Amino acid sequence: MSAPPGTRLGPGRPRDPQLDAQVLGATLELLVGEGYQATTIAAVARRAGVVTTSIYRRWPSKRALVEDAIFGLEAFEHPIPSGDLRADLLAWTRLFLAASAHPAARSAIPGLLSEYHDDHDSYRRLLDRGELPTREVLRELLAGAVADGQAAPDCDGDAVFELLRGATLFRALTHGTDGAEDFCRQIADALLAVAATPAARS
Amino acid sequence: MSAPPGTRLGPGRPRDPQLDAQVLGATLELLVGEGYQATTIAAVARRAGVVTTSIYRRWPSKRALVEDAIFGLEAFEHPIPSGDLRADLLAWTRLFLAASAHPAARSAIPGLLSEYHDDHDSYRRLLDRGELPTREVLRELLAGAVADGQAAPDCDGDAVFELLRGATLFRALTHGTDGAEDFCRQIADALLAVAATPAARS
Repeated sequence: MSAPPGTRLGPGRPRDPQLDAQVLGATLELLVGEGYQATTIAAVARRAGVVTTSIYRRWPSKRALVEDAIFGLEAFEHPIPSGDLRADLLAWTRLFLAASAHPAARSAIPGLLSEYHDDHDSYRRLLDRGELPTREVLRELLAGAVADGQAAPDCDGDAVFELLRGATLFRALTHGTDGAEDFCRQIADALLAVAATPAARS
Repeated sequence: MSAPPGTRLGPGRPRDPQLDAQVLGATLELLVGEGYQATTIAAVARRAGVVTTSIYRRWPSKRALVEDAIFGLEAFEHPIPSGDLRADLLAWTRLFLAASAHPAARSAIPGLLSEYHDDHDSYRRLLDRGELPTREVLRELLAGAVADGQAAPDCDGDAVFELLRGATLFRALTHGTDGAEDFCRQIADALLAVAATPAARS
């Protein structure tokens, strides 16, 4: 599995899709079965049946590998707007909760949060990749809801995003999907109240 | 520092306030300086200048010790209601953000969240201790605001709490106190919208 001479690639560039899939799958399995601490590059290599240099060629660190594994989870597809803002906010809330409550995500997120504490740049990269596009899609949803009178013209879409993300993440980490449906309805209704209220001029 | 014969006490019962303060202080210092992983009972004992059995006599686990250290931080005093719900929600938001952004809390919370994943009972105990009393005080604040017309009679106080806690915790862990004042005003205004909106009957 070592690279032939002359094929060494820069970090971050895909090398072999099948090897990538093997490594990412092994990472998810280890996160779920053994936890974040035990999910080392060496353990992933053993489980995937590759040498560690094959992993390091593609991912500069365990953190980058875990982020890729978590972000690759399918739960992250944005809901299609239905025209009913309450229903759409409920779909978003379910999506955010499900994504954070996935067993691999639940295992990884506290570990990642701990590492971001000491590495602001890596958190900044994660923002650019995962958060900004999602924030933008939510902003478009609210703009559509303003157009047909379901949201206030100057409602605070960023506040909706912050509340949605924080509440679902904490809930997922502490309760998983226990009581998820009641929780999601409660949060979606509260977010609808924020969207329907004109921004304060404080 | 070992206990004289006949003085052995049950777990959780205070033994020596000065020794407790030494141990809790050493725990906070280690959390800030070395991180959650390195804050072991052995490391705390070394820094506090006590033997590990003195710590185990009072705290059954590292997790219990870290919880006590974090909950002892002074930032957790509830704000006095001012009569202006917007100002009060802003005070609560600042309080929650400051408590989670304290360097020791910021270091400890991801590690604690990770442990709760595998130990639901311990999270339940933490809820009874820290969350339920705070939820109750916030509920009283909203009841007062309902009485003088600042909140809707059937507003969803639990949703306000969930949104407040989740959004401030995530913000504190990822940004600390950077841009805290703008963030707190944004969140407090959104929470005011939730409090002023009648609960949906969905």
